[in-house]
Amino acid sequence: MSEIIITDIRVIDLRFPTSRESIGSDAVNKDPDYSAAYCILETNTGLEGHGLTFTLGRGTELCVMALEYLGHVVKGRSLASLTEDMVGFSRALTDESQFRWLGPEKGVIHLAAGALINAVWDLYARAEKKPLWRLLAGMEPKQILSAVDFRYIDDALKPEEAREILEAAQAGKAERIAVLERDGYPAYTTSVGWYGFSDEKIRRLCHEALADGWTRFKLKVGGDPVNDLRRGRIVREEIGWTNKLMVDANQKWGVEEAIQRTRELAALDPWWMEEPTNPDDILGHARIRAEAAPIRIATGEHCHNRVMFKQFFQAKAIDVCQIDSCRVAGVNENLAILLMAAKFKVPVCPHAGGVGLCEYVQHLSAFDFVSVSATMEDRVIEYVGHLHEHFVDPVRIRRGRYLMPEMPGYSIEIRAESLQRYRFPEGEAWRAEEAQETAIAESAH
Amino acid sequence: MSEIIITDIRVIDLRFPTSRESIGSDAVNKDPDYSAAYCILETNTGLEGHGLTFTLGRGTELCVMALEYLGHVVKGRSLASLTEDMVGFSRALTDESQFRWLGPEKGVIHLAAGALINAVWDLYARAEKKPLWRLLAGMEPKQILSAVDFRYIDDALKPEEAREILEAAQAGKAERIAVLERDGYPAYTTSVGWYGFSDEKIRRLCHEALADGWTRFKLKVGGDPVNDLRRGRIVREEIGWTNKLMVDANQKWGVEEAIQRTRELAALDPWWMEEPTNPDDILGHARIRAEAAPIRIATGEHCHNRVMFKQFFQAKAIDVCQIDSCRVAGVNENLAILLMAAKFKVPVCPHAGGVGLCEYVQHLSAFDFVSVSATMEDRVIEYVGHLHEHFVDPVRIRRGRYLMPEMPGYSIEIRAESLQRYRFPEGEAWRAEEAQETAIAESAH
Repeated sequence: MSEIIITDIRVIDLRFPTSRESIGSDAVNKDPDYSAAYCILETNTGLEGHGLTFTLGRGTELCVMALEYLGHVVKGRSLASLTEDMVGFSRALTDESQFRWLGPEKGVIHLAAGALINAVWDLYARAEKKPLWRLLAGMEPKQILSAVDFRYIDDALKPEEAREILEAAQAGKAERIAVLERDGYPAYTTSVGWYGFSDEKIRRLCHEALADGWTRFKLKVGGDPVNDLRRGRIVREEIGWTNKLMVDANQKWGVEEAIQRTRELAALDPWWMEEPTNPDDILGHARIRAEAAPIRIATGEHCHNRVMFKQFFQAKAIDVCQIDSCRVAGVNENLAILLMAAKFKVPVCPHAGGVGLCEYVQHLSAFDFVSVSATMEDRVIEYVGHLHEHFVDPVRIRRGRYLMPEMPGYSIEIRAESLQRYRFPEGEAWRAEEAQETAIAESAH
Repeated sequence: MSEIIITDIRVIDLRFPTSRESIGSDAVNKDPDYSAAYCILETNTGLEGHGLTFTLGRGTELCVMALEYLGHVVKGRSLASLTEDMVGFSRALTDESQFRWLGPEKGVIHLAAGALINAVWDLYARAEKKPLWRLLAGMEPKQILSAVDFRYIDDALKPEEAREILEAAQAGKAERIAVLERDGYPAYTTSVGWYGFSDEKIRRLCHEALADGWTRFKLKVGGDPVNDLRRGRIVREEIGWTNKLMVDANQKWGVEEAIQRTRELAALDPWWMEEPTNPDDILGHARIRAEAAPIRIATGEHCHNRVMFKQFFQAKAIDVCQIDSCRVAGVNENLAILLMAAKFKVPVCPHAGGVGLCEYVQHLSAFDFVSVSATMEDRVIEYVGHLHEHFVDPVRIRRGRYLMPEMPGYSIEIRAESLQRYRFPEGEAWRAEEAQETAIAESAH
């Protein structure tokens, strides 16, 4: 790998017009256009590393610009010089002495760092000719630890404790890999219950999903209470009471309202209540969890770094840890979060409602199962059924489970035609969109 | 004000090459170029509203781009339509349905929202022909409350409680305004102890500052422990033990290291220990505060929104609340934070180490004194002595106190010549910088 030199980085503003069909809509995010700041690391060998950070449309240009700037850290570097010092590489991005003020370790610049770090891991896995989860699963505890930055979390998880967790999981690794190869990893579907879907559409999608073997379903709530309950009952009518139903308020409520509303939604027997309030509110989640018990509380897709996750664990604020593959600084920071979750015995159920997130997180959950938590109990990966056709190595779902990826890399490469077509604003999809809007405007006259 | 229409917004990338002299340097921020994303709201009346968000150089372009986008919210609007619904206006920025993903309410997009909201308050105060602090001080509790967004904080501060705080402070308002007019507001200086300054320079600057009437001094720490203590003793030798000394580690340490180091620095009898660890670590600060007692713990300049401040208060994590005028979404969000600080009885001592921050925060502290906390006890405003010459209405300091501004507005307008000269990268200051660097590079050959 010391011979693989990163010669250039190309960054693309990629946007899919999903808002037209209310795909991805919830109580807070009304009109998302699933998008990404996408980067390609070019090397002297022809190998490429691909990475993206997920966004919702407008503002993607900010992540693109941040990514273009941060690219200077990898340009001209050998892959080995990065992978041998993952903490140093990561800090070169997150501690940039002037950029840091804009975070630190949050928002636009951290999203951009996530894309770049993920691209390096993609390149690393390709160079090793393994899917990322197998690369990680094959590493010794010492190698994993060398990629984890314990700064600001060592009061909650000491390197020695992390080592013990990894060493304890050495036993049975081969068997767990065989389980993954045979059965895949359990999933749940969010695609039946977007906020903007009609009752009839929800009913039909539940029906179809059941037939496809799904057993866990998520519903967006956070609207009028009566309406939320009605929509929930529709799902229950279709899926019954043995299958699992999760509800997701996407941060709609204040703490006290969240307690009240979560208690009301208990009538639906939810498996968890997701994002009941502001994602920064650690103490608020702890209070909701205590006062709306026994409903399990989930959050994490907006949790911006390991220091925040650390506190969610320390405060006993969550029952379900929803890591995101892009929100934090890529694979490295997620390794830290997986290890903390294991120590605090909180199951990790990754967020994947977006483009590329399903592709990414299957690797992280597989690694968690093989090398960290060593269990699938209470663990599932989110699944949304959109936009997978754009990926070179899309996720494969069978009877409500992810089948493990086998192509080398982090599964995030988007097909060249799609990159071309959905590039914003010059791609054909957006020129067509423009033409359509002009036509609508004209026909209105 | 319904006749004042915002017709356009101009955004400027403004950077001062302060890194050349180690001004602003600390244990984490080694080479800051004090900078700003600066905006000018133009109106149909000739009146302008000015606002900026402070940055450290690289990355300012991201805030500029975010600000250019968010500008669409105010363009074409009457000033009255914004000031009559400050919460609605603020949410139009922070809840933008696609942009929101990049925060929410943190990082680049929140810094940009701060600049824009501050510019509207500047315009508002100019239209009322009052300095901002007098505009705020003259408002009825009801008017203040209407500008505060209680969403996500009403579990800690109910609107009724905020009203009680404001009503209790109605008594004695005129007397407190008279005190401000006569004596100004107490300050401390950070300009003597930047991290990159030599011992001799620190000694000389302390000496000079004492002669100018300063009684409170801040020293940057977070380096080698022996070195930190030596530098601290130098300051103590110069200022004695009656004057106050604060120490500031700028997030350098993990929680346990911070406890240890804070205990060691107790030998300097610090008035407070500032930013001992990561700014997101509410529970970490609470533990440091408990275990390094009785040293008072301060943080806030990187605290990104009212939800985070709420938790610092709830967790009893800080003794000093260091609001920042740009980090959060402008005056509105700071009103919420001032009210919470009053309820939790934590003194507010604004952060002002940057360009324009001194100009801004004097208004907020004055309002706190007149209408919220009604006291100056344990309250001081930071002062740094750089770059004030660029302001149309610069801060005035007399014997270690801010004299109250009397020109209409929020005191943030930068002189047209300076905007021209320090505009990045095309301003003359940067072209000169480039020429200088070329000369240095050439002379090295």
